[in-house]
Amino acid sequence: MTSGSLLVDAMTAIARDVDAVFDALLPVPADPRARLVEAMRYAAIGGGKRLRPLLLCATSAMYGVDRDAALRAGAAVEAIHVYSLIHDDLPCMDNDDLRHGKPTVHLAFDEATAVLAGDALHDFAFEVLADPATSADPFVQVELVRTLGRASGCSGMAGGQMMDLVAEQSEFDLPTVTRLQQLKTGALLGAAVELGAILGRVPHEGRTHLRGYARDIGLAFQIVDDLIDHEGDATVAGKAVGKDAKAGKETFVSLLGPDRAREQARLLVEQAIAHLAPHGKEADLLRAVARYIVERDH
Amino acid sequence: MTSGSLLVDAMTAIARDVDAVFDALLPVPADPRARLVEAMRYAAIGGGKRLRPLLLCATSAMYGVDRDAALRAGAAVEAIHVYSLIHDDLPCMDNDDLRHGKPTVHLAFDEATAVLAGDALHDFAFEVLADPATSADPFVQVELVRTLGRASGCSGMAGGQMMDLVAEQSEFDLPTVTRLQQLKTGALLGAAVELGAILGRVPHEGRTHLRGYARDIGLAFQIVDDLIDHEGDATVAGKAVGKDAKAGKETFVSLLGPDRAREQARLLVEQAIAHLAPHGKEADLLRAVARYIVERDH
Repeated sequence: MTSGSLLVDAMTAIARDVDAVFDALLPVPADPRARLVEAMRYAAIGGGKRLRPLLLCATSAMYGVDRDAALRAGAAVEAIHVYSLIHDDLPCMDNDDLRHGKPTVHLAFDEATAVLAGDALHDFAFEVLADPATSADPFVQVELVRTLGRASGCSGMAGGQMMDLVAEQSEFDLPTVTRLQQLKTGALLGAAVELGAILGRVPHEGRTHLRGYARDIGLAFQIVDDLIDHEGDATVAGKAVGKDAKAGKETFVSLLGPDRAREQARLLVEQAIAHLAPHGKEADLLRAVARYIVERDH
Repeated sequence: MTSGSLLVDAMTAIARDVDAVFDALLPVPADPRARLVEAMRYAAIGGGKRLRPLLLCATSAMYGVDRDAALRAGAAVEAIHVYSLIHDDLPCMDNDDLRHGKPTVHLAFDEATAVLAGDALHDFAFEVLADPATSADPFVQVELVRTLGRASGCSGMAGGQMMDLVAEQSEFDLPTVTRLQQLKTGALLGAAVELGAILGRVPHEGRTHLRGYARDIGLAFQIVDDLIDHEGDATVAGKAVGKDAKAGKETFVSLLGPDRAREQARLLVEQAIAHLAPHGKEADLLRAVARYIVERDH
């Protein structure tokens, strides 16, 4: 199998399987809470590249983890990602109309429902990780919860989003933009890889190279996102583009220029792949994901 | 010691101790995330009755749980309560200006910061519960996380908040209002008691009477909240009053009338206290909390 078809097959499978997990775990209740769960399903099912569940499942598969358990943990990480997008799209945040090519949750429903749907997906993530169906071992469950909580809260994604808000009023330099993006995007991508390794019972010290891989692809991912925002087409991207320049925010592209930014992303991906040297063919999917990250246009 | 001074001393101690836990666990970072943590601290420190940590600590003390561990779990439950207030106060939700007698987070900071501060407190709760300092036993930790997640998400508080939004456009009857309030307020109050028992290693089947106690005080609490909203004084309440009637929402007071509502709250509190019959003096604080719930004016 070529690396291209390995990736295409894995992406097709993860999109289908993550949708199935959300569908099974989010039944619509027959009472006035129905609107909340419908909004959660609207946001969670049928959209996005599912990069975080893909990273989680690709990592855990290297250690022989059962795919059903990995998919549940993948849905938990994706639920955090989706909740953050719902809140990020709100009028008081980025005020976006379009997400994955369809109206954002606050437009399809209303703002209050969007706030609550994000909040409820946030709980959903931790509930799924603490469920024995994800892991029967409470040591593993607690480490999953702790790792995702750290990646999501003020030391991770939410902290990065705060820096992003402050960025509109500040002149951030390259180290600060790097730190911002490591928190805002990198922390959750890193958690996806780390959760896969935790499910695979890889001890903390045995995950150093995987953390290196995740850190490098996380930054490369963000640089490419900045390039898409700078050069992209909203129809292809499935979301608004040109936002950073409009908001007066410094990005990798504004600080490095598009050519050096693209070169930097390529170097980071090579470095990410180098971290996987201890692994043989079983890491080919993680290698393919790393390459995809610089090649994608949305 | 009289039941009155037992309660006053416990409330004074819990207010001081919960503030100390938040202060210790939420250090302000020396980078642009500072604004986020300052907003979290603004909302979390120095306000509220701390009823949920009080219930948790009073319950766990009956089973000999170390107070420091109980306070950490209490701060986790309170963080969920505080995050829900921040989001509930947003312009797109209740649009409140005043909370615990001071400007709401979106006014003291801004709306985007308020959304993120709520989100980050939400993570904080689960991070604290999954930390070995709260319990060194991963079985206990996982049960804490699972119980709080269920009480907070679409099967609990967030589900109740959704019903509350729908209530403005619907004519809810008494069973539906009861269900709404059991989710919106009761679920988290119940979780506080349950987390105390989990820390005390009370098995699930040994907590039935505590769940009964929590269910009854939860409903009584909400009825008294409705009475305060109906009759109250914003200065005493520390928040806006008369909101339910303005929003055209059915409440216990609109459905039962104030006299029958107050009588119902009294009956529920007596019933709650009856659930504690298996306990001796060690449950006096829980009994005093139940009585306080119908006697309070804010």
